[in-house]
Amino acid sequence: MAKAGSGKAESLKPRLPRGLFDRREGDLLAQARMLEVIRATFGLYGFEALETPFIEYTEALGKFLPDLDRPNEGVFSFQDDDESWLSLRYDLTAPLARFVAENFDGLPKPYRSMRAGYVFRNEKPGPGRFRQFMQCDADIVGAASVAADAEICMMAADTLDRLGLAGQYAVKVNNRKVLDGLLEASGLSGDGMAGQRLAALRAIDKLDRLGFEGVRLLLGPGRRDESGDFTKGAGLAEAAIERILAYVSEDASLTGGDAPSGDVFASWEEAVGGSEIGREGVAELRTIMSLCAAAGYGHDRIRPDPSIVRGLEYYTGPVFEADLTFAIASEDGQPIRVGAVASGGRYDGLVGRFRPEPVPATGFSIGVSRLFAALQLAKSPLVDAAEEPGPVVVLVLDRENIADYQRLVARLRGAGIRAEAYLGGAGMKAQMKYADRRKAPLAIIQGSNEREAGEVQIKDLIEGARAAQSIASNAEWKAARPAQISVPEAEMVDQVRAMLERHFEDGAA
Amino acid sequence: MAKAGSGKAESLKPRLPRGLFDRREGDLLAQARMLEVIRATFGLYGFEALETPFIEYTEALGKFLPDLDRPNEGVFSFQDDDESWLSLRYDLTAPLARFVAENFDGLPKPYRSMRAGYVFRNEKPGPGRFRQFMQCDADIVGAASVAADAEICMMAADTLDRLGLAGQYAVKVNNRKVLDGLLEASGLSGDGMAGQRLAALRAIDKLDRLGFEGVRLLLGPGRRDESGDFTKGAGLAEAAIERILAYVSEDASLTGGDAPSGDVFASWEEAVGGSEIGREGVAELRTIMSLCAAAGYGHDRIRPDPSIVRGLEYYTGPVFEADLTFAIASEDGQPIRVGAVASGGRYDGLVGRFRPEPVPATGFSIGVSRLFAALQLAKSPLVDAAEEPGPVVVLVLDRENIADYQRLVARLRGAGIRAEAYLGGAGMKAQMKYADRRKAPLAIIQGSNEREAGEVQIKDLIEGARAAQSIASNAEWKAARPAQISVPEAEMVDQVRAMLERHFEDGAA
Repeated sequence: MAKAGSGKAESLKPRLPRGLFDRREGDLLAQARMLEVIRATFGLYGFEALETPFIEYTEALGKFLPDLDRPNEGVFSFQDDDESWLSLRYDLTAPLARFVAENFDGLPKPYRSMRAGYVFRNEKPGPGRFRQFMQCDADIVGAASVAADAEICMMAADTLDRLGLAGQYAVKVNNRKVLDGLLEASGLSGDGMAGQRLAALRAIDKLDRLGFEGVRLLLGPGRRDESGDFTKGAGLAEAAIERILAYVSEDASLTGGDAPSGDVFASWEEAVGGSEIGREGVAELRTIMSLCAAAGYGHDRIRPDPSIVRGLEYYTGPVFEADLTFAIASEDGQPIRVGAVASGGRYDGLVGRFRPEPVPATGFSIGVSRLFAALQLAKSPLVDAAEEPGPVVVLVLDRENIADYQRLVARLRGAGIRAEAYLGGAGMKAQMKYADRRKAPLAIIQGSNEREAGEVQIKDLIEGARAAQSIASNAEWKAARPAQISVPEAEMVDQVRAMLERHFEDGAA
Repeated sequence: MAKAGSGKAESLKPRLPRGLFDRREGDLLAQARMLEVIRATFGLYGFEALETPFIEYTEALGKFLPDLDRPNEGVFSFQDDDESWLSLRYDLTAPLARFVAENFDGLPKPYRSMRAGYVFRNEKPGPGRFRQFMQCDADIVGAASVAADAEICMMAADTLDRLGLAGQYAVKVNNRKVLDGLLEASGLSGDGMAGQRLAALRAIDKLDRLGFEGVRLLLGPGRRDESGDFTKGAGLAEAAIERILAYVSEDASLTGGDAPSGDVFASWEEAVGGSEIGREGVAELRTIMSLCAAAGYGHDRIRPDPSIVRGLEYYTGPVFEADLTFAIASEDGQPIRVGAVASGGRYDGLVGRFRPEPVPATGFSIGVSRLFAALQLAKSPLVDAAEEPGPVVVLVLDRENIADYQRLVARLRGAGIRAEAYLGGAGMKAQMKYADRRKAPLAIIQGSNEREAGEVQIKDLIEGARAAQSIASNAEWKAARPAQISVPEAEMVDQVRAMLERHFEDGAA
């Protein structure tokens, strides 16, 4: 009953599409520990878990891809049987808006929601560009007060503190209303100026990478970078450029983490001039910063930053970004710029797409995959992927007696000890290699002599590895048989447990 | 800077595509508890966690959809930028085969892998048909011995025992080689008989639903069901029908869970006649059952069942299925047939698609979503979705003093107590309703009088709800002010903790 044409002249190549990766036990356990810290912090703040599916109607997700510099990055989409378009979620905010709108009357309001899970973006290839990555979000829906925005900032700071990053991050706050007011005061209002506004925001957003003079060029005629590539500028008038530069220049006094000497917002008020929306934005920021200060969050943790822009689409008020401030070296020693590990803001219009009335909302999203990678590069013990010790491996010396070996294993498992019998076809030496590869702390050996005597040999592989380093000759080794004991079968479980406990207390396993 | 055309004449309908569902905190926590039991059991057996991405090359997944009755169920697929086809994974086995082939030399062999995660199937609409659902798999790759199949069966039994289902399931075992041998002995060999073989297997697979006589009709001329629909039969000759019926009829002696009185496999050997592959299959089953028996797993937990067929595609040897044996009532009292909650088998050809040499493998998959639904219907305490108690809610009586309220909240959180300030815009009464809706055990109240006195009111909402049931009049209620105490701010945290501990010890929250 062989299938026709099943010859293997050409076998398939096993590979993953670009931007997608497998993850093994060490990383999975480490990431689970990190996620647990995040979830516990969100939980303390009263956030409630929610999980939405990976697939949504494309129109429900809308076109809100948030990254300013990659407006063309795509979503994975496909058609349903009824021809409607479906997409894989590209963030956890658009699905929340759909969920809240769908269940509006049944939810407590304000509704505090947290979600963790993979999202998908059809990115162009590039280092560190993943097409599947994890986010963990917290949002407060139905609270118009900027006290909610302040709380989101404080929770972002608390989360990073609890992840062991105290003193190594900054939560930077701005307000889209301030930016709108600045552009208005700079004479860039009206539909005809949309291109200039976009170019100006992009220039402001680049402050930390290009510095003050780089921004000046981008606001004006344009800038040629070191590689010779030219970026067209916004072509603004001199007065507008000076106004915008005066606004961003305040940044210098803040990056140190000290509280500013004067009222930082006085110059922001000057920058937005007579713009009503701009003044409203500055007032909101004042309130946010004073709430944070009252709760004991200083400028070292949460501070205003004029260069925070956060995309173009759905944010309507305060915007936040959490950056790691310490230097990370890549595996080959190059300094790495991690950038934002969390970001968010107020999006009062997103739920309103589905409903007659507006629904205020604010929240933030931790880039779990990015933060995890940064913590690993920074050698944080929280995400140390050193694997758990493997199982106790019972060697199988005569395969016709496999039932006896499985009985030994079953006894160990019954006592809560991770264990397995070797089920492959190899001999003793290869089985010992297998036990090593599995990081087995102990091996159990029972040949026919031991079986007749009702005994087992327990080989301590951790102790053995240590002893091997100090015993020179093969003969001496064989004579000493270090780290190997013979015990009656009935005592096997107790002995194994005692030996494991010794290693765990040692921190050796 | 309003956007043109943003009027809301027609708002979007918030909804999910069919077969996709949101999941809220109670269910998420309950499912996490269930998964933890499964993972811990697999861990005891030495299985190592792995996570593969949701998206794979379509050709790497192959066309191995396992369900016999739904050969047309589809996968979600879309084209990459380079025109290659990508698909969402439809199970966790095909991606494992790709992973093992891709990392073959670096893996310990046998390789024990466990994976948990969502898979996707483009199912036709129907009750209980999900298009995204969770599986949890364990596989042993690189072990040709049926000792590995026996171990998989024992682990399936252990897992269900640990989920609280002892005595309420059966792991049923068969062998594709026995079925092949039976068909061969029935004269159905050769390419020209493929249709009859398929029809015969489908008939055998329906034994538990249609009974002996139903199978007889399906092997012969065909069967008309109660609704009048006619299913064409295999049209086999009388001798073939009798041979197959003799094989399946042995089932009757086994379903009771008692060990069979004679050698059940003697009649299976008769059924496969002179077929070599059939005899090999029976011998393998004998070994599996004797290994299980030696390890203390009786027929009540693991037993042979001639009607287990498990799809048509990739299984090459032993096949397993775990069924729940107790009756479950639906919410409207109708009996529900849960069917298989886990299944698997040996698939020696799957990794070999990618490699020159064959790679033996066996494993099984728990239908997490289906098992979870069954446990919930069976009212298992493990998956009781009663939500955790909500946060302590601090009411906000005068919003200009929000910083003071947030300070109270921060103190509670600092002591590890889940807490939040009410951040909406509603009055006192609505805030109390909010606290109820959030399942808050306590509310903290501080008006201007209390603030001046440096005090807070702590209202015990659980105790209050109890008292409300026993106090008749509104006046009496107001006079007693049950379950509400006034304490100095400095004692708030200790008091709150004491009150929460009282409720948790009570089991009241």
